Amino acid sequence: MSKYWSEAIQSLTPYVPGEQPKGSNIIKLNTNENPFPPSPMVLEAIHQFDTDRLRLYPDPDASALKLSLAEHFNVKANQVFVGNGSDEVLAHTFMAFFRQPQPLLMPDISYSFYDVYCNLYGIEAKHIPLQDNFCIVLDDYAQANGGIIFANPNAPTGRALTLEKIEALLQRNTETVVVVDEAYVDFGAQTAINLVDKYPNLLVIQTLSKSRSLAGMRVGFAIGSAELIEGLERVKNSFNSYPLDMLAQATAIAAIKDNDYFVETTQQIITMREWTNQQLQSLGFKIIPSKTNFVFASHRYIEAAELMGFLRTNQILVRHFSRPGINNHLRITIGTEAEMQAMIDCLKRHPDIISL
Amino acid sequence: MSKYWSEAIQSLTPYVPGEQPKGSNIIKLNTNENPFPPSPMVLEAIHQFDTDRLRLYPDPDASALKLSLAEHFNVKANQVFVGNGSDEVLAHTFMAFFRQPQPLLMPDISYSFYDVYCNLYGIEAKHIPLQDNFCIVLDDYAQANGGIIFANPNAPTGRALTLEKIEALLQRNTETVVVVDEAYVDFGAQTAINLVDKYPNLLVIQTLSKSRSLAGMRVGFAIGSAELIEGLERVKNSFNSYPLDMLAQATAIAAIKDNDYFVETTQQIITMREWTNQQLQSLGFKIIPSKTNFVFASHRYIEAAELMGFLRTNQILVRHFSRPGINNHLRITIGTEAEMQAMIDCLKRHPDIISL
Repeated sequence: MSKYWSEAIQSLTPYVPGEQPKGSNIIKLNTNENPFPPSPMVLEAIHQFDTDRLRLYPDPDASALKLSLAEHFNVKANQVFVGNGSDEVLAHTFMAFFRQPQPLLMPDISYSFYDVYCNLYGIEAKHIPLQDNFCIVLDDYAQANGGIIFANPNAPTGRALTLEKIEALLQRNTETVVVVDEAYVDFGAQTAINLVDKYPNLLVIQTLSKSRSLAGMRVGFAIGSAELIEGLERVKNSFNSYPLDMLAQATAIAAIKDNDYFVETTQQIITMREWTNQQLQSLGFKIIPSKTNFVFASHRYIEAAELMGFLRTNQILVRHFSRPGINNHLRITIGTEAEMQAMIDCLKRHPDIISL
Repeated sequence: MSKYWSEAIQSLTPYVPGEQPKGSNIIKLNTNENPFPPSPMVLEAIHQFDTDRLRLYPDPDASALKLSLAEHFNVKANQVFVGNGSDEVLAHTFMAFFRQPQPLLMPDISYSFYDVYCNLYGIEAKHIPLQDNFCIVLDDYAQANGGIIFANPNAPTGRALTLEKIEALLQRNTETVVVVDEAYVDFGAQTAINLVDKYPNLLVIQTLSKSRSLAGMRVGFAIGSAELIEGLERVKNSFNSYPLDMLAQATAIAAIKDNDYFVETTQQIITMREWTNQQLQSLGFKIIPSKTNFVFASHRYIEAAELMGFLRTNQILVRHFSRPGINNHLRITIGTEAEMQAMIDCLKRHPDIISL
């Protein structure tokens, strides 16, 4: 608290990201990072970069990156918005579209940053309960709203919706913006990008942090109608002309270009996820079917907080949320084969699992 | 305009940055970039960087960078805030401190992004006129306010205030935040950083884009009391947890470390500025005394717009503002010796200057 702060700042509850430990020898399965390094083309882009150019401002419009995303997704360049990670893209989205007289609809369990943005921009949120099995029921969103946002697959549950259900929502809900946050879509779900030409109120947000192994460079993007993209550009150009530095732009272009590497590494993660699911089930865990690079699991007998602490003692970090409804679950990122084996081996040493 | 936009977005007038031409063979004196490449240590930091780490999120707190800035400026690490360029730092500053019942005071001629932030966040601005000689008169700021912001040296005039005048303002104005935007301070003005321990309402904002030749990497920072920095962190952590990518953090640390290079290159720019001033005066220009890496000049007989167009035809870009009061001035960035010679030689070929 400070007399110097704007009044609304006093009541902000900032988002708390997963821990980024500085030591090594830690198996880090807590922030959904990709276990594979970025494409070799990213390394090449960095090493070939003429660093003398860093004295200049980057392209404020990131035109080359937009073009590369537009080609990749078969849309026009003016249907692409880029930002400093999908978090910045989301922040501008809330500012541009969701400050409306009616409340914003979102699942009661989802990416917890959504509520933080609402708080920051004074947006009223209405939380729609998930089903008991953690499914999002889009039929429940047929009500007056100032916008709709959900993650597909959802976080931290990992559950995905079909494109048919999303299109049915878009057919009903034509007057406010519908945002599909697809941070994890590349691990087995269907993207809604192919619907943007049909529904001018649809905005799809993705990131290069997960499936492109580029969390360290902070690049996210949105794809939608030119009209929605223009709204985002207006906010961005009223906030920071140059959110993506030269190396972020160059590495993102390289990562998008190397599609073979992307397909191969995401497939390996999917394979490792299914192996991890089987192993966890054999140790007494209940698993939510995941289309992401993490599994969301609860043990039949042992509390999640206890298991998180046990893994942590053994230098393995997983994420646990204290929020009621999900506080008996662990969110475990899919790491390398060796990391997942180590995590499973560690759980097997837990006294209550040994005795099962 | 779009029915999908939040109402306030319809009336935004975004900031327009100086042109970033994509061709080469252009002498670019329009966006106050440093003519020298970044320190060789920056190059080394990039080439030694383990790119495999880019799969991980960066340190959300940029602790190593904050520490390096804290040591450099002899303050505590909790007195340092970092952001994606000083534009992002400024945006968060307006959000954190300036949404107040009283208007924000600022010079009527200054960095034009200030008005854009006011528009974005619904802040009322009160513009205090400069003197005819473009001096900021801080005595005029002794009035009810919800905050005060000015650039020192001011942009685009280049004029600097003394530290005594700034401290006199701080002695009078203790209840609202005073922001000194020191983007250009390293080219001959006095920083107010040494006053932050004495005045808890003082926030000093600087950038690595100008004097550290790092515009391409987008790193800015603020130094102030722990209480003001906490306000900024609350906004930042409600907006984007990771605004600085790994390479931005690494290159910024390298740039701060190489103080000898910084001192040498800024001194060369100052020398070149004084040479440019003399040359321009000999061609019939009136010069505002500049403590920045640009000169703000008007010709005694020839209109600024005409001269800008003439230089542009000859592949030399300088900045011209259409705003009344300064629309007969050119803002000319100090480039290399060869670039400044080329710019002066070009002006000498203007028909109306030949005939003088």
